[in-house]
Amino acid sequence: MKVDSAGLDVLSRGECLELLSSTPIGRIVFTDRALPAVQPVIFCLDGEDIVIRTDAGSKLAAATRDTIVAFESDEFDPRTHAGWSVTAVGHARGVHDTAEIDRLSALPLAAWVPGEQDHFIVLSTQQLSGRRLRP
Amino acid sequence: MKVDSAGLDVLSRGECLELLSSTPIGRIVFTDRALPAVQPVIFCLDGEDIVIRTDAGSKLAAATRDTIVAFESDEFDPRTHAGWSVTAVGHARGVHDTAEIDRLSALPLAAWVPGEQDHFIVLSTQQLSGRRLRP
Repeated sequence: MKVDSAGLDVLSRGECLELLSSTPIGRIVFTDRALPAVQPVIFCLDGEDIVIRTDAGSKLAAATRDTIVAFESDEFDPRTHAGWSVTAVGHARGVHDTAEIDRLSALPLAAWVPGEQDHFIVLSTQQLSGRRLRP
Repeated sequence: MKVDSAGLDVLSRGECLELLSSTPIGRIVFTDRALPAVQPVIFCLDGEDIVIRTDAGSKLAAATRDTIVAFESDEFDPRTHAGWSVTAVGHARGVHDTAEIDRLSALPLAAWVPGEQDHFIVLSTQQLSGRRLRP
């Protein structure tokens, strides 16, 4: 197992994807009026892509239109201090193709908030890195 | 209770600070080689400031030197879909004053990773916003 300069285990791409498929919650990092912004999102994987569902009129939909964003998910146990985090940096795009929207609509992507969640964002995981903290 | 366009409860500044003081884990959002970056951190509040401890030679220390960063913390229950998130955007600075370092060293800020955690970052919570999702 590779270890980074802080003493954390470095996860492989396969391990990162496996961990991402184990949790429904992540955070998307974007720019809002030239300031850094971060928002929790419900997501699921579609192959190696991250798929998020939002309102077409949302700030998130506008901010992730054909741009580079970061995405993070993690799980830590405050008692044992064990856990992991995975970060993806890649190209985000809104989905407008009807066939693709139909296909993505079948993903197990639950809406946690009320309101229309009619807009899909697909984020490629070009850069994927992860760390595991052992207890 | 104020509700936003997505149907989420809008939290007051006081509620945001109270929630931030209830959890040891957050994520700091910064820029790394012109790309968005996000990293989980252990933090605690010092009054209304967020305090993080890191290695003086870390990427995080370099990236948060006198700049505007975002910070996020959240807690969600995947079963009930209830939870909250708080986001701060503000000025981050490294601490170099010996008296301030001594004072911050007394904060209940546990190190979860091995290695020197000799550098303090203080993030002001100039902009603080929070949402609560009811089950």
